[in-house]
Amino acid sequence: MALTEFSLIQQYFAQQNHKNTSTCLGIGDDCALLSLPAGYQLAITTDTMVEGVHFFAGADPAQLGHKLLAVNLSDLASMGARPVSVTLALTLPTVDAKWLEAFSKGFLKLAEHYNVDLIGGDTTAGPLTLTVQALGLVPEHKALVRSTAKVGDLIYMTGALGDAGLGLKINLGYKCPQPDVALQRFNTPDPQIAVGLSLIDVASACVDISDGLAADLGHILGQSHVGACLDWECLPLSQAVQNYIDETGDCLMPLTAGDDYELCFTVSPDKIAQLHGNYTQIGIIESTPGLRLRKDGVVQALMSKGYEHFS
Amino acid sequence: MALTEFSLIQQYFAQQNHKNTSTCLGIGDDCALLSLPAGYQLAITTDTMVEGVHFFAGADPAQLGHKLLAVNLSDLASMGARPVSVTLALTLPTVDAKWLEAFSKGFLKLAEHYNVDLIGGDTTAGPLTLTVQALGLVPEHKALVRSTAKVGDLIYMTGALGDAGLGLKINLGYKCPQPDVALQRFNTPDPQIAVGLSLIDVASACVDISDGLAADLGHILGQSHVGACLDWECLPLSQAVQNYIDETGDCLMPLTAGDDYELCFTVSPDKIAQLHGNYTQIGIIESTPGLRLRKDGVVQALMSKGYEHFS
Repeated sequence: MALTEFSLIQQYFAQQNHKNTSTCLGIGDDCALLSLPAGYQLAITTDTMVEGVHFFAGADPAQLGHKLLAVNLSDLASMGARPVSVTLALTLPTVDAKWLEAFSKGFLKLAEHYNVDLIGGDTTAGPLTLTVQALGLVPEHKALVRSTAKVGDLIYMTGALGDAGLGLKINLGYKCPQPDVALQRFNTPDPQIAVGLSLIDVASACVDISDGLAADLGHILGQSHVGACLDWECLPLSQAVQNYIDETGDCLMPLTAGDDYELCFTVSPDKIAQLHGNYTQIGIIESTPGLRLRKDGVVQALMSKGYEHFS
Repeated sequence: MALTEFSLIQQYFAQQNHKNTSTCLGIGDDCALLSLPAGYQLAITTDTMVEGVHFFAGADPAQLGHKLLAVNLSDLASMGARPVSVTLALTLPTVDAKWLEAFSKGFLKLAEHYNVDLIGGDTTAGPLTLTVQALGLVPEHKALVRSTAKVGDLIYMTGALGDAGLGLKINLGYKCPQPDVALQRFNTPDPQIAVGLSLIDVASACVDISDGLAADLGHILGQSHVGACLDWECLPLSQAVQNYIDETGDCLMPLTAGDDYELCFTVSPDKIAQLHGNYTQIGIIESTPGLRLRKDGVVQALMSKGYEHFS
């Protein structure tokens, strides 16, 4: 870290008081230092966002700061982990004070909401690329992994499906009469931290829907060596998404579009009584491998494709 | 993480068996999971390398993989931490199997040498940008920080100064009769992990020399609210660096060039007897703020500038 970068980071990012009790030493040394409570495991994830790939050139920097952190916290949520701290690697084409101020505000506002400390980072010159690594705590052996769904488990999800995908379509020119919710879901998703925490000892497997329900549920199916059938009539679709499908006939969009950051999880039938929350049951785990969709009384195979880079 | 990326990561990076006892769950879920031993703190650092900024376009991918990991492990070394695991965020313009194979080999070879598990990552499309976050363990309250140097402490460093800087000059066209050591130091630096571990309870402060001795020692001085005087005659310079200075008169290069990844640390006089290793005493901590250099019997102020992005 060079001196000018250091003062940059200090100015925009070190203003946050460390509030999380895990943080012993934050920004400003070669490493940050954390103390972790006994009886917990550390959950670690990292996600990168690249200009022109994950967000449009000229995207609102405050929304970008929010979303960058949210997509990482969403991975912690899907493990049932409580976020504690993050590092931020910023590659910036120029030092734009206005951009940095807005970006850091969006980022830190969400961080403070979840009591997450920004404990370190790196600032480099180059094409706009943003990487966060997030650390969280989960009680030992309680993490919600992908590999433990069982045949007969019911499949649930939080929130609604496809609104972020619709938000992307709107950004690309689709005319939507009520664009606000879709754009909000696309620009500033909410990580489902509280839900993840509440699912410990209840869900048998969990993922966040970042690459599309089909692809992400597909990870559970693959790693659990099971299959699933989804019920089209059960999928939680907003009126705006329903209108989009009615207009375009593109009923795969909500199943394949990314960026929803809802949780999709499985629950054994004997644990249903312990499930408290406003979730939608969308299908069931079956023994036959693959993902299927029941629509209009017909069961059809569903390609488990989400958004693919390099494709 | 999309499906094609996932298989990419699997193919090149998931081959490593998890050897570190801290790793409970590695690549392949929304998060990795670590269990940490009691009595330790977690040290966390992140560093990014950008093509055209930190390395030349077309740089050898195996060397790049080595260096990317080494510069992150070097930050752990400077805290006295033992590395346990890393995540890797790769932004790649294309999927080049040959490049990925060489890069992953260079990266994983160094990882295995230090018993470091690659526990997760993200692969995105975009301009070549590489970010690692490294996690290490340090005994509670024993980390080697920057803020605890005291007046009268002696300043030491490992290895030699300026060879990596000379390697950069060679890459830029400087004709060096014996370029091998300088190029090796520039391309594949060794993180000083064992030294960092041995300095616990001995050194009063420590940094790694990533941005140049003047800048990095400057961090110790600033955060410890002290100054220092270095002795030119004591600086460990290789014959190649000495020849470069004789030819060019550029005696500041070894003090300001980055990428050495040696450790610079301070030791209280009453701890000198506990210092076992081949280190060079290069100066002394003083009460007057700022960094000075004694050369040819004259003490002069030294600008504490290292390599600066955006300058």
